Amino acid sequence: MELKNPICRLFNIKYPIIQAGMVWCSGWKLASAVSNSGGLGIIGAGSMYPAILLEHIRQCKQATDKPFGVNIPLLYPNVQEIIDIVIQEEVKIVFTSAGNPVTWTAILKEKGITVVHVVANTKFALKAQEAGVDAIVAEGFEAGGHNGREETTTMCLIPIIKEAVHIPVIAAGGIASGKSMLAAFALGADAVQIGSAFAIAEESSAHPAFKNKIILSAEGDTRLAMKKLVPVRLLKNEFADAIAQAEAEGADQTQLKEMLGKARAKLGMFEGDLANGELEIGQVSAMLKEIKPAKRILEEIWEEFLKAKNELAAQNFDI
Amino acid sequence: MELKNPICRLFNIKYPIIQAGMVWCSGWKLASAVSNSGGLGIIGAGSMYPAILLEHIRQCKQATDKPFGVNIPLLYPNVQEIIDIVIQEEVKIVFTSAGNPVTWTAILKEKGITVVHVVANTKFALKAQEAGVDAIVAEGFEAGGHNGREETTTMCLIPIIKEAVHIPVIAAGGIASGKSMLAAFALGADAVQIGSAFAIAEESSAHPAFKNKIILSAEGDTRLAMKKLVPVRLLKNEFADAIAQAEAEGADQTQLKEMLGKARAKLGMFEGDLANGELEIGQVSAMLKEIKPAKRILEEIWEEFLKAKNELAAQNFDI
Repeated sequence: MELKNPICRLFNIKYPIIQAGMVWCSGWKLASAVSNSGGLGIIGAGSMYPAILLEHIRQCKQATDKPFGVNIPLLYPNVQEIIDIVIQEEVKIVFTSAGNPVTWTAILKEKGITVVHVVANTKFALKAQEAGVDAIVAEGFEAGGHNGREETTTMCLIPIIKEAVHIPVIAAGGIASGKSMLAAFALGADAVQIGSAFAIAEESSAHPAFKNKIILSAEGDTRLAMKKLVPVRLLKNEFADAIAQAEAEGADQTQLKEMLGKARAKLGMFEGDLANGELEIGQVSAMLKEIKPAKRILEEIWEEFLKAKNELAAQNFDI
Repeated sequence: MELKNPICRLFNIKYPIIQAGMVWCSGWKLASAVSNSGGLGIIGAGSMYPAILLEHIRQCKQATDKPFGVNIPLLYPNVQEIIDIVIQEEVKIVFTSAGNPVTWTAILKEKGITVVHVVANTKFALKAQEAGVDAIVAEGFEAGGHNGREETTTMCLIPIIKEAVHIPVIAAGGIASGKSMLAAFALGADAVQIGSAFAIAEESSAHPAFKNKIILSAEGDTRLAMKKLVPVRLLKNEFADAIAQAEAEGADQTQLKEMLGKARAKLGMFEGDLANGELEIGQVSAMLKEIKPAKRILEEIWEEFLKAKNELAAQNFDI
């Protein structure tokens, strides 16, 4: 049977749902669980040394015969080494982010790899399309982790990018339920990328204390920090509050870098230091209430999506 | 015929589309044009002295026999006088914003007035419901003008508030097209409130130079400013850039108030000083390309909404 959705066709997956590659959360366990359940699982290379990534790719291949991908932040110093590994291991799908897609897209495409680039504005969407990527992830202000400078929300970003490009658009930011997935499709998205909801999956390698803090968080508990460095959405804690205070007082790049130090995200998200670590998560953390297997997360979103789609279609607007 | 949509029933209007009450934009001309076209037009009292508001209400009654409303920011010093006028003039619908709904809702309801309160978080949505309002406007971070401190986007805010309250929810922020209206309905909204798209209507009293600047603006051209006072989304210009610079350097409330001075919004939006005025507009300004009559704006959004609804319903997700 031919798959109707362009993203399902592109990746040969059942549901147009992609699990975002996330530092300290999405290793082979989460990626393979999502892929085995019919979505596209992605290993987040951003928090892995090359040798660790190699191990995760090999484990993922053992754990699933379904398509999966690797997310590579292009700003990292060892990006060449990372790219060599994904090519050597014959990874079929690569999502690139946080950097310029021009240099690497051609190299990956030449090896027959499907390439998707993550953007937060139209300028980079067009640049990525020009570079030859197969699809775009358009990520709004409400998304967790690293974020665009323009602060354009998913509601505003998707229609603008959809109109500007001719390749498929995957919406990200603020999507954690079937209803928000349906909203993304209403805006013109061809698929969705979901991060936060999978960050608390049982298979996520995030520290249990971090997962519990997400579940207990409420509306307004995240904040976009470090705008003078690279903007990043964090769950509020002692560290994030100290950054907010410093920013309100006019802290400059040097001061912020000093406060940030090294390995803050690892400290918070992987080692579970809830006070001093960096806790990257999206605004939807307020809606997340339960740690579940990835398969259930995916299926519940899909069922709610179909139900919401039918209910919306049935709403009577005869006037 | 019985209207199916709860907001159409509540206001006795044809389309579930409300034109936001906006300072310096929505006088009787815009409000009556929207109401005559089947939406709900709203006079924005926020920029009017009591005598001016009285004049606008009387003109609006002359210009339309359809329902219209008045938006009253509750933080203003002369709110008692404003409330007295809407009661005396037998205005049927009042939207309150920027303040606590508890005091005034009972007074308005006692006079048989339909009351809606604008909120940016669940706490105030519940407080307004408790106070007895008939519906809520839930407004996201992408909206123009005054804005919530939590920075919750429309995508994240609507589902949370919809789940928390039992009264109808009107979505606002980021909505300027039929597709974004459909997205709001997918998220659970019962209607939409649209500001920016009507701010550039022919009937809007905004200065033509401001309307033209909106049309020429692009993605990323607005910014949430004055977070240490009351957050407000502004189109970038010399004034907004100076505020951004001062905020980055840690300017405090006193310094910001001094820079803001008096009547900045009037200077920019009504008098057309594009360099030194405050230009309140939403992120959707990037999508607005043409000055049109309010009737056409409304009808085009409605037609696109129905078309997008049918297309979404027809998307095949058989798997």
